Amino acid sequence: MTVPPPDDHARHNARMERVAAARAKMQARRTLERGLLIVHTGNGKGKSSSAFGMAIRSIGWGMKVAILQYVKGKWETGERNFFEAHPDLATFEVMGEGFTWDTQDRARDIAAAAAAWERSKAMILDPDVDFVILDELNIVLRDGTLGIAPVVDFLKDRPLTKHICITGRHARPELLAIADLVTDFTEVRHPYNAGFKAQKGVEY
Amino acid sequence: MTVPPPDDHARHNARMERVAAARAKMQARRTLERGLLIVHTGNGKGKSSSAFGMAIRSIGWGMKVAILQYVKGKWETGERNFFEAHPDLATFEVMGEGFTWDTQDRARDIAAAAAAWERSKAMILDPDVDFVILDELNIVLRDGTLGIAPVVDFLKDRPLTKHICITGRHARPELLAIADLVTDFTEVRHPYNAGFKAQKGVEY
Repeated sequence: MTVPPPDDHARHNARMERVAAARAKMQARRTLERGLLIVHTGNGKGKSSSAFGMAIRSIGWGMKVAILQYVKGKWETGERNFFEAHPDLATFEVMGEGFTWDTQDRARDIAAAAAAWERSKAMILDPDVDFVILDELNIVLRDGTLGIAPVVDFLKDRPLTKHICITGRHARPELLAIADLVTDFTEVRHPYNAGFKAQKGVEY
Repeated sequence: MTVPPPDDHARHNARMERVAAARAKMQARRTLERGLLIVHTGNGKGKSSSAFGMAIRSIGWGMKVAILQYVKGKWETGERNFFEAHPDLATFEVMGEGFTWDTQDRARDIAAAAAAWERSKAMILDPDVDFVILDELNIVLRDGTLGIAPVVDFLKDRPLTKHICITGRHARPELLAIADLVTDFTEVRHPYNAGFKAQKGVEY
């Protein structure tokens, strides 16, 4: 591309100086710091992978990360392979026995979700853990496999010394109401609809 | 929570069997497999972290990952710390010298973006690389620091043996038009607006 003439550069640089000043002023007003309750929801791709990316960032800062996946037990996944190959990097656990449409046994799903929630609470209460990821928790909250009320009650009283990220479609409104950071992952175009199958590295 | 009576379980299980059958039929129609062009855009949080999460998944499958960050050079970030501490896991490079509102020198921005794009092309053409992440490329395409036309021309002719993920707000329509997978990260609630500063592990 053509490099703009010097006058344009000067105008651009002056404008950027104003942007920088406005940004610094805005940042100065943002002084709060504590553990955030983060929710990733929506029909788009990236909710779980974004949580794993935050795990990487946290590990990069020397923080201790604990990950619990609620409903993908039967599948071999890239994230599972990765964290099992590097057990020093994070605590990574899978509970549940595949999506409910795979197990087709509601009593077993309920028991697995209850056990996973007990484990989640232990991770959240563990003073050594700085970042807890509860992957696909929204799924079992949505379909009633796990009751929402005790989860919300516990999270309201959570220790504010760590971040918690909860992922999955159809986040319950009761959860969204108490979250600090909510992103809706909105599908614009998905290769599924063009006949592509789920691919390694991208979807799992 | 109360476990539903056996009748409910039977009904649920029968419904889940139908869901499983429908799902299997849908999956059977999804047979295509090739490298995807993925774009993460929107005003919400998670675009870059989701790309890093796909990096983790890909590494978990033994794929080779190359990451190039366009515009965050001056900052210490968790992802940079992580990948610099584990150079065996992925190629991780940072080009550019901070956001343009930090450098305030458009000529330098243009030169840095051009150099970063040359490096990006080399990563994409490298037969050993399976997944290329061009983090925040959208930013320099949006503001004209890097021209969109040569980028789109190159990506149209890209090798289809690897995935490419491009992140950043304000993705250009010319790029969206040729992408296979597009997610809009939509801000629902952000702690910025409640006075929180950007926090380690979450935002950087």
